[in-house]
Amino acid sequence: MPTRRELANAVRVLSMDGVQAANSGHPGMPMGMADVAEVLWNDYHCHNPANPGWYDRDRFVVSNGHGSMLLYSLLHLSGYDLPMKELANFRQLHSMTPGHPEFGEAPGVETTTGPLGQGLANAVGMALAEKVLADRFNRDGHSIVDHNTWVFMGDGCLMEGISHEACSLAGTLGLGKLIAFWDDNGISIDGEVEGWFTDDTPARFEAYGWQVIRNVDGHDPAEIRQAIETARAESGRPTLICTRTIIGYGAPNKQGTEATHGAALGDEEVAATRKELGWEYPPFEVPDDIYAGWSARESGAKAEREWNARFEAYRQAYPEVAAEFSRRMAGELPADWATETAAAIRQAQADGGDVATRKSSLQALNAYGPSLPELIGGSADLAPSNNTIWSGSEDVLRGGRNGNYVHFGVREFGMTALANGLALHGGFVPYTATFLTFSDYARNAVRMAALIPAHQVLVYTHDSIGLGEDGPTHQPVEHVASLRLIPNLNVWRPCDTVETMVAWKCAIEERQGPHALILTRQGLPHQSRDDAKIADIDKGGYILRDTEGTPDAIIIATGSEVGLATGAADALAGEGVAVRVVSMPNVGRFHGQDAGWREAVLPPSVTARVAVEAGVTEGWRGIVGDRGKVVGIDRFGASAPAKQLFEEYGLTVDNVCAAVRETLNKD
Amino acid sequence: MPTRRELANAVRVLSMDGVQAANSGHPGMPMGMADVAEVLWNDYHCHNPANPGWYDRDRFVVSNGHGSMLLYSLLHLSGYDLPMKELANFRQLHSMTPGHPEFGEAPGVETTTGPLGQGLANAVGMALAEKVLADRFNRDGHSIVDHNTWVFMGDGCLMEGISHEACSLAGTLGLGKLIAFWDDNGISIDGEVEGWFTDDTPARFEAYGWQVIRNVDGHDPAEIRQAIETARAESGRPTLICTRTIIGYGAPNKQGTEATHGAALGDEEVAATRKELGWEYPPFEVPDDIYAGWSARESGAKAEREWNARFEAYRQAYPEVAAEFSRRMAGELPADWATETAAAIRQAQADGGDVATRKSSLQALNAYGPSLPELIGGSADLAPSNNTIWSGSEDVLRGGRNGNYVHFGVREFGMTALANGLALHGGFVPYTATFLTFSDYARNAVRMAALIPAHQVLVYTHDSIGLGEDGPTHQPVEHVASLRLIPNLNVWRPCDTVETMVAWKCAIEERQGPHALILTRQGLPHQSRDDAKIADIDKGGYILRDTEGTPDAIIIATGSEVGLATGAADALAGEGVAVRVVSMPNVGRFHGQDAGWREAVLPPSVTARVAVEAGVTEGWRGIVGDRGKVVGIDRFGASAPAKQLFEEYGLTVDNVCAAVRETLNKD
Repeated sequence: MPTRRELANAVRVLSMDGVQAANSGHPGMPMGMADVAEVLWNDYHCHNPANPGWYDRDRFVVSNGHGSMLLYSLLHLSGYDLPMKELANFRQLHSMTPGHPEFGEAPGVETTTGPLGQGLANAVGMALAEKVLADRFNRDGHSIVDHNTWVFMGDGCLMEGISHEACSLAGTLGLGKLIAFWDDNGISIDGEVEGWFTDDTPARFEAYGWQVIRNVDGHDPAEIRQAIETARAESGRPTLICTRTIIGYGAPNKQGTEATHGAALGDEEVAATRKELGWEYPPFEVPDDIYAGWSARESGAKAEREWNARFEAYRQAYPEVAAEFSRRMAGELPADWATETAAAIRQAQADGGDVATRKSSLQALNAYGPSLPELIGGSADLAPSNNTIWSGSEDVLRGGRNGNYVHFGVREFGMTALANGLALHGGFVPYTATFLTFSDYARNAVRMAALIPAHQVLVYTHDSIGLGEDGPTHQPVEHVASLRLIPNLNVWRPCDTVETMVAWKCAIEERQGPHALILTRQGLPHQSRDDAKIADIDKGGYILRDTEGTPDAIIIATGSEVGLATGAADALAGEGVAVRVVSMPNVGRFHGQDAGWREAVLPPSVTARVAVEAGVTEGWRGIVGDRGKVVGIDRFGASAPAKQLFEEYGLTVDNVCAAVRETLNKD
Repeated sequence: MPTRRELANAVRVLSMDGVQAANSGHPGMPMGMADVAEVLWNDYHCHNPANPGWYDRDRFVVSNGHGSMLLYSLLHLSGYDLPMKELANFRQLHSMTPGHPEFGEAPGVETTTGPLGQGLANAVGMALAEKVLADRFNRDGHSIVDHNTWVFMGDGCLMEGISHEACSLAGTLGLGKLIAFWDDNGISIDGEVEGWFTDDTPARFEAYGWQVIRNVDGHDPAEIRQAIETARAESGRPTLICTRTIIGYGAPNKQGTEATHGAALGDEEVAATRKELGWEYPPFEVPDDIYAGWSARESGAKAEREWNARFEAYRQAYPEVAAEFSRRMAGELPADWATETAAAIRQAQADGGDVATRKSSLQALNAYGPSLPELIGGSADLAPSNNTIWSGSEDVLRGGRNGNYVHFGVREFGMTALANGLALHGGFVPYTATFLTFSDYARNAVRMAALIPAHQVLVYTHDSIGLGEDGPTHQPVEHVASLRLIPNLNVWRPCDTVETMVAWKCAIEERQGPHALILTRQGLPHQSRDDAKIADIDKGGYILRDTEGTPDAIIIATGSEVGLATGAADALAGEGVAVRVVSMPNVGRFHGQDAGWREAVLPPSVTARVAVEAGVTEGWRGIVGDRGKVVGIDRFGASAPAKQLFEEYGLTVDNVCAAVRETLNKD
């Protein structure tokens, strides 16, 4: 029977060997946190390696994701389907063990981490998901949602601003099943952190309303156990366990220094470490008794069996909510979703009305929300402006009680990363909102949503100079174009209520990544469409208004500029110029259509093309081609009433007409 | 003689009237903070309205910039050249009083604020500037740098993550002359903050090492005075003064509620407020005794006169450092800058050598740094990777002592906004560094640098899949293209040491905004050039390698892909295809050249064009035209050694050749 230290040393050695084989990576954190991880995984972490998707498993997140070899070692040793050859293949092309943990690459990886602080925020989202689901589904005597979220984090995570946003909110929400371990090793890449990181971190977290367990020796299993027991005993507050560790523990000449952080130890030090730890096995070989000490296959299978039995009893007692739980956790939509949404969209087309698309968005929420208990969302303190509170919204209260609406506070980055955690946990379709300009604050979490991928709907209102008097600090110019550059991000800029409702429908249905909805502050004209045209919207670009025969020119527009396009088409028709108007609410999606569709909308023979969008022009060059023109804005906005700004910046029917004429005269 | 309250009421009334006239804006904060501002400005704030650029003035920042009417009122009343008609013109096109304070629009506006938390971080930068300059320039008996930085901030600023980054670092650095006022009014846009913001903020700031003055009645001048006295008495720690205020103080039916935050009070409530405050004057009229009570023209002129005398004595005692001080504060370069840099660049061209451009960047710092005491910089805990520590780097220690190198910690957003404050203060050329991907974390501060504009050099290394094993979380794909979309941001992606040194030279010389230097992790081949070609680099795009006569095709490339372009040109030459290679280290700059230059480099007649860049392709469509092709990467990267990734993602000489051939066959 191996000792705890011997079990932990297996993690140390696998980690240093993986890094050594790759000659790249971060041995320090896994070697430092091995003892904490050993106690947590072998005594507390409730999971089933044979079924990484078991709904009621504990979630484990390595927010300091550079310590990926720790996670891979734990997954391998405890019995996940992550073979040793993958550990030996650390950081190699097409391995299951990329440099930082990536969701979907290896079983048991709950989220993609590496960009510091975000794993922590994901974990807050997972813990919130647990609380809200527990409140919704658990019944007296039937506890079907009851798991912990564990998160490891380092000094880097704690220096990042997002740690403030996420942990402040976690404290306010009283997420008692969130237990965070601070790898307090005093070292970051630049060296000893005392020159740049002198926070009293325990006091800081107490200020957030967390339980804080100070001064735990991260190499003493008894102290670690005691800390975890204390953490688990607290149900109303998240817990921070401060574990003092030695980075690179076991490397006799390098431990305790930044030399172990981000580079292979080198053959000599690897050998010396083996000796120091008394580890007699060659790289990537683990003796059976160590495997036996780590295996969670039996305990995990038992835990899941017991839960299955509990769930079966619950299902019999509460068949309807049980069905809802199963549906939501499986990520399925309600049975009548397609017909309901189609009817709502047709109704919106019939109703007409010139409204701001941020209000159209609320209309979509009101239409779709009642059948979607999985919808959970909120705004970064801009609810009245973002229109995110719909008729069925109820605030999520402390302890996750009662609701589907989160007042995220002024925390755009934390909100967005938290929503990634909600999505990854399962059971939810999260939406988050702020002004489009402040998508900047959250940008890397948006990118992570696209990369993971995590399904969330990003509601970005006040999408151009149309925001008006708040001025250039608040007016997006480059943002729509810039979001379109992020791979796997669906960017929608609808022109009226109908397009907005289609965008929301797709955004809810299509779970393979995030969707950004770019919405106006100001009212927009309703566009007329028949059923066929309504069906065209989700192709991303379609003929909104056409002429007889081949058009002389095509105006392509999005969102608030579609009204300019139709206005220009009308005016030009009076001059005998036949103009087609293409509405392109989702440029990426249009590019993804087959050539037949694309060429039907934009026939190669029609080279007189003008794109109109109240933002930077560069992204439209490919669509308008060498002969085409783009009417847009390549400088910052200004503070003034919106109508004046559109004039001032040349976003007018006259200018669009002039651009079309100029394009035609180029012949 | 008016009472303090009457003086403060002038601010309240001007603010509510300005917002009412615009029917847009935020009266709540100015009305709530008027008493605090009155005490601060009339009793402590040291400034000279007649010379807003006086070097040793106190800096005053409104981080909750939506309260802009507070600042405009203060500037107007105290005697700055901001006429009443501008206050009446609040938020109108071409007024000096935009919705949020914008640097350069009105005298006395020290920075552009509105995006929450960033003004606070700017203020930390200004306070750091003061400390470092004081340490460098003050001598026994000669105190020429000695001023406070005051900052107002609200709950929103404190919820934002950047407040954590900036205030944590301010505590570590011991910025004793930074004094922050928390407008603790318990209200944010969504309503009473207790549902989403329950931090013990005083405890949080104590955890950062700040002096915290709790529970100050923000409507009691005596308490406010006492708090400021205590703050000024502390020299080793920044101070947070927690002022409890009533938002919209004086509006009898709306005060204390979110109704006053972001909308005009309405005619009725404005009238009621006049009555409540006993203010008898019509809008935009202030009686003489109130003006007299506010005027800082005399005291300010006296303060500056005294400083001028002190500086003159200093100049006589220490002529050389005094000259350095004057030069730096005026933003002038050393006299021999042009010749020294030209020589260093020529030398680099002669030396050759295949190096990573992140190392070339260090070479530039080592070459230029010794003559630039104004250079101050650092990295967000990636110094060994970003290569930001040059031979003359000395750490800035607690209290701003001793240095020109700041260990910013893992705080990208805070670092970048802080550097904006360093730049705005004057006396410095700041540089900041992180991996290019993590420019996302700082993105809105980069945008603010461009908008303000604030001069800083953004050193972004590890600029593509060439980063290798760390994987897609760390590999930029969309970032270069995305940064190019920000107006007024110079984006450089140099291909070797010489281009890197030219980029650094321009980045230091050209102060009208930020420059981003996009640098590789991996080694790049040195390119040969004559003096004429070296002189072409700063045009942003130039012919690096040419053929006899008109080329058959042109390959345009940047950074690490220039080597692929020259390799492809060589290979194609062997097939009889004449290829010109254009290196385009700064695309925006190239677009800014006259047509003569642009067409000499990219003749309209040569339509067979291929652009090569290891990032998203969209931005290149305009340059390659309808016939052209782009070799790039429109998906996320992967974790593997860099060389393998370039193969895997098709960034190879073979693929570039194939693209050129395909382009030519399109004839």
